[in-house]
Amino acid sequence: MIKVGIIGGAGYTAGELLRILLWHPEVEITFVQSISHAGQPISKVHKDLLGDTDLDFGQADYTCTDVVFICSGHGKTKLFLKQNKLPEHIKIIDLSMDYRPQANDKGFIYGLPELNKEQIKDANYIANPGCFATCIELGILPLAAANQLKEDIHVNAITGSTGAGQNPSTTSHFSWKNNNVVVYKAFTHQHLKEITETVLQLQPNYSKQLNFIPVRGNFSRGIMASIYTDCDWEIEEAYQKYQEYYLTHPFVTITKDLPDMKQVVNTNKCFLYLEKHDRKLLIISVIDNLLKGASGQAVQNMNLQFGIPEKTGLGLKPIGF
Amino acid sequence: MIKVGIIGGAGYTAGELLRILLWHPEVEITFVQSISHAGQPISKVHKDLLGDTDLDFGQADYTCTDVVFICSGHGKTKLFLKQNKLPEHIKIIDLSMDYRPQANDKGFIYGLPELNKEQIKDANYIANPGCFATCIELGILPLAAANQLKEDIHVNAITGSTGAGQNPSTTSHFSWKNNNVVVYKAFTHQHLKEITETVLQLQPNYSKQLNFIPVRGNFSRGIMASIYTDCDWEIEEAYQKYQEYYLTHPFVTITKDLPDMKQVVNTNKCFLYLEKHDRKLLIISVIDNLLKGASGQAVQNMNLQFGIPEKTGLGLKPIGF
Amino acid sequence: MIKVGIIGGAGYTAGELLRILLWHPEVEITFVQSISHAGQPISKVHKDLLGDTDLDFGQADYTCTDVVFICSGHGKTKLFLKQNKLPEHIKIIDLSMDYRPQANDKGFIYGLPELNKEQIKDANYIANPGCFATCIELGILPLAAANQLKEDIHVNAITGSTGAGQNPSTTSHFSWKNNNVVVYKAFTHQHLKEITETVLQLQPNYSKQLNFIPVRGNFSRGIMASIYTDCDWEIEEAYQKYQEYYLTHPFVTITKDLPDMKQVVNTNKCFLYLEKHDRKLLIISVIDNLLKGASGQAVQNMNLQFGIPEKTGLGLKPIGF
Amino acid sequence: MIKVGIIGGAGYTAGELLRILLWHPEVEITFVQSISHAGQPISKVHKDLLGDTDLDFGQADYTCTDVVFICSGHGKTKLFLKQNKLPEHIKIIDLSMDYRPQANDKGFIYGLPELNKEQIKDANYIANPGCFATCIELGILPLAAANQLKEDIHVNAITGSTGAGQNPSTTSHFSWKNNNVVVYKAFTHQHLKEITETVLQLQPNYSKQLNFIPVRGNFSRGIMASIYTDCDWEIEEAYQKYQEYYLTHPFVTITKDLPDMKQVVNTNKCFLYLEKHDRKLLIISVIDNLLKGASGQAVQNMNLQFGIPEKTGLGLKPIGF
Repeated sequence: MIKVGIIGGAGYTAGELLRILLWHPEVEITFVQSISHAGQPISKVHKDLLGDTDLDFGQADYTCTDVVFICSGHGKTKLFLKQNKLPEHIKIIDLSMDYRPQANDKGFIYGLPELNKEQIKDANYIANPGCFATCIELGILPLAAANQLKEDIHVNAITGSTGAGQNPSTTSHFSWKNNNVVVYKAFTHQHLKEITETVLQLQPNYSKQLNFIPVRGNFSRGIMASIYTDCDWEIEEAYQKYQEYYLTHPFVTITKDLPDMKQVVNTNKCFLYLEKHDRKLLIISVIDNLLKGASGQAVQNMNLQFGIPEKTGLGLKPIGF
Repeated sequence: MIKVGIIGGAGYTAGELLRILLWHPEVEITFVQSISHAGQPISKVHKDLLGDTDLDFGQADYTCTDVVFICSGHGKTKLFLKQNKLPEHIKIIDLSMDYRPQANDKGFIYGLPELNKEQIKDANYIANPGCFATCIELGILPLAAANQLKEDIHVNAITGSTGAGQNPSTTSHFSWKNNNVVVYKAFTHQHLKEITETVLQLQPNYSKQLNFIPVRGNFSRGIMASIYTDCDWEIEEAYQKYQEYYLTHPFVTITKDLPDMKQVVNTNKCFLYLEKHDRKLLIISVIDNLLKGASGQAVQNMNLQFGIPEKTGLGLKPIGF
Repeated sequence: MIKVGIIGGAGYTAGELLRILLWHPEVEITFVQSISHAGQPISKVHKDLLGDTDLDFGQADYTCTDVVFICSGHGKTKLFLKQNKLPEHIKIIDLSMDYRPQANDKGFIYGLPELNKEQIKDANYIANPGCFATCIELGILPLAAANQLKEDIHVNAITGSTGAGQNPSTTSHFSWKNNNVVVYKAFTHQHLKEITETVLQLQPNYSKQLNFIPVRGNFSRGIMASIYTDCDWEIEEAYQKYQEYYLTHPFVTITKDLPDMKQVVNTNKCFLYLEKHDRKLLIISVIDNLLKGASGQAVQNMNLQFGIPEKTGLGLKPIGF
Repeated sequence: MIKVGIIGGAGYTAGELLRILLWHPEVEITFVQSISHAGQPISKVHKDLLGDTDLDFGQADYTCTDVVFICSGHGKTKLFLKQNKLPEHIKIIDLSMDYRPQANDKGFIYGLPELNKEQIKDANYIANPGCFATCIELGILPLAAANQLKEDIHVNAITGSTGAGQNPSTTSHFSWKNNNVVVYKAFTHQHLKEITETVLQLQPNYSKQLNFIPVRGNFSRGIMASIYTDCDWEIEEAYQKYQEYYLTHPFVTITKDLPDMKQVVNTNKCFLYLEKHDRKLLIISVIDNLLKGASGQAVQNMNLQFGIPEKTGLGLKPIGF
């Protein structure tokens, strides 16, 4: 059994981790740390876990722990690791963005298994990718790997409310958000940095623009990205290259049927779909932002780190509707 | 022109008032007071009013004002009227619950036109009814008026998120509320008091229980109440009595087709529908909580106070979808 | 391994069964029959299963099958069993309402494990309960078992769109249903029959009225029932009796924190919550209509029939948001 | 009074017209034709109009009619006008796409007042623009008018369910659409033709690509388009040019505060917002697809045709929430 601790256990990504790990056949949870809720039952905060666990939020205890998921929020992991010297045997999977840029230089591996699977298997410290970044990178990895990115890339991606965290605010208010959509951080979203780095890792000569318009949607879970760029491949060749690239990656499925976003909600899957229009290749990529875009991918990384089958504990029942 | 001032102009009911009054043919807005947003354009807060008005939030100025709507929130009207002595010529329409119970004793008229139309016409001070109260009272007024309430009344009513105001909180968070419903304040909702009082005004001998289960729904606007109680009337007689009761009340429509809630959203209308099952009379009552349940009814009261046709400015385009 | 066949594989409940059974550690799917989609991949209809299975819809083949789930829709199971003589060794779990009333007389067991667990273990043929029926019966079983039902029962229950099946219609149209609610079949819903029968099984002397107002909600999954009736028990005694009744039933959790509906969505769980107001006991009961209200309960019944732990394959990740 | 007839009165756009026209101070409705619902009350189909009108669906009668709105659906107007010779004095406003391309050649004026106001005033026959077309064209008219379009234009626009009409189908089913988004007709949407024509009317030398990704959103009403293209103007100059272009067009508001879509829902308004990123000008354009994108614009056109103020009857209360 893999002994798992969670730091920052009261947030969205920690809750989602628990929803997976409580049923993971190879995992034992040793602690779920939370400063704000110490001593309370986990099901007081993650109320859907009532009946599934009697665990309480408590202190971190690394003696009997193999791996720690850090779910503290952006900017806080660095602080945490500065203030807390973890024993050497502990592996870390960090869900914040703190160690994603230039991860290698900081002793971390960027935890996108479809890009870095072998390094992840040997990694002690993993920087788990961002949700938008995951959805968009999976859409363009096969192009970059084949040196096929030549012109600007155009991305529009719509995300659910859980992407913005659990702090109540004007734009998380139901009365505002219900039946509403809005663009935000156009061309400047913080995930652009990790996407660009990933592209350059595979195709170092790429020097064009990545244009990214993020949209807040009126749903709780999911990301749908539409991506297009000029491409030499005909549609059949493109499908073949995508199939080949993802052959050994069980969570990515290439489909010739246009997917809707909800097909992957509550799963760790990514569906990719292609169209060719003149010289433009259109790629539709859909994931669940809290799973393949966060906690599901974190568990996938843990499975790889501990040498168990990549899909263990991630055979999740889709929501369907 | 009726010269209108608004106190507490930054909240939901004030915004809704402005959405009506800006197009009301007999109204001129003299001030929209807000402490928190003084000096700002109204459309910075009520953003949908951009392009409709250049008004700013400002100070109250009663010299050129005929009527003041007080939208400050429950508990704050009493405080406001204690601290501010309004000139005698000013009429007041209070949207809080402060003066609803025993309104008469406090110099106010309970502003349900379908109950108190004649008194409203002569009233200086009006306590505008609560949203649940309006929806439920309209459903049972004809029974009480005919002395037909004999047994317990059972009410379940579901309301939109705007009923809970604009303060961000855990239960107003989109991620929580989306696709969710929850009961709250069962048997103890604060509107029970004004409903009971209204019933007793018409049928003083009623001594049974009013059982009220309020439900928070996952929509922004609207209330649907299902009400049943034992009743001697056959269905046709019931329909006739309801028709008669509401003959002179233009915003209440009796229908023999089961209404859904959205039929009245963005209007000041109430639809009532009846079924008889053995001795039980079922009444379905639907309103828009912000209009007939708040600001629309407030304007209806203003129209009556100033002797203009009751529907003036209230011919509102329904949302339809 | 339990060898499972599905009849009527293209509908909602069959899709939901597949979402569970594909990850069930003790199940092998032998066929998924569908007349309308024979020969097509299952993932053409249940599109979220893309990547999870390569199965096609095909013909029924009972030779290597232990149990058949019949998902054909109400009225069609009777017809199917008349036209198809199944081998004697085959167990049947029928998700339609065809054999629920007087199930015993027809050789079936009413498949509510919290009522009939021992009979289910020995049953060959199971009539799987209705969704509303499950939610409401779980709310009142402890009362009936203790002979405590004495007066009318008042039930209001709101259900998701999947409860009405997948046929496109006016009332399943998004433009109509979005942000809308409506009552339907008040006092006459077809599940009243099985609820009454269940109550009488435990408390044969109950002779009062069960008043049931069903509501269509604007969400896809879930049922929330609010139930009240007069009761002699004080609140603590009520909680104790409910705890005792459900002690050996792992999917029902008694909670002292008011549950919202979404806490159980995508799980097979039922949460029950109690309040006492004067003589009235209020019971809030929430389930996922497609799981505990249909396919999840069907799998629970299968587990019991085949002598494996009741929760096998039903450790489902909640949707959370 | 303008005497108005409606052909094809049972559809979405006709219902929306009626919601406006019943309160329009200068309009009298002479007939609402529907083959499928002849003889029925209008409020049987457009159920929210109950209490607002007693009109029935009937036959067309042109004797006392000044203008006819044709709401029959795409492809059917041509057929209708072939089969029905309308008297010469009748003005026509066609809401289908039948006469939009090369409208002039067919005796029609393309009814976008912000492009063709003067011609509309004199027009007998108007081809009312498409919803996506309106939203996108309003976003780029000032660029085209100033000859500033030089490179590819990139558009992603998300629309509500009412854009797809009222026929029940798999993709209009609530269970599918709820919490879901999907791309459709990427690069090939039928509105591209009229958008291109409009651009070329103002800037005939434009020869680059208009890339358009339409998205179906999970809401009933509204369109939000994000548009970007290379542009020489600095942001302040761009704002100034947009302000100037729309100076005499009361329904278009230029704003420096990022708009969300719901700000214009239930109004005839369009909000435009600009950002500059390096050489890229980003334009956000939001409208209500059934109003400025269909029936509201149709009434605006009628007002212009009949020489009454452009905003008459279009001072609509926004939904707000």
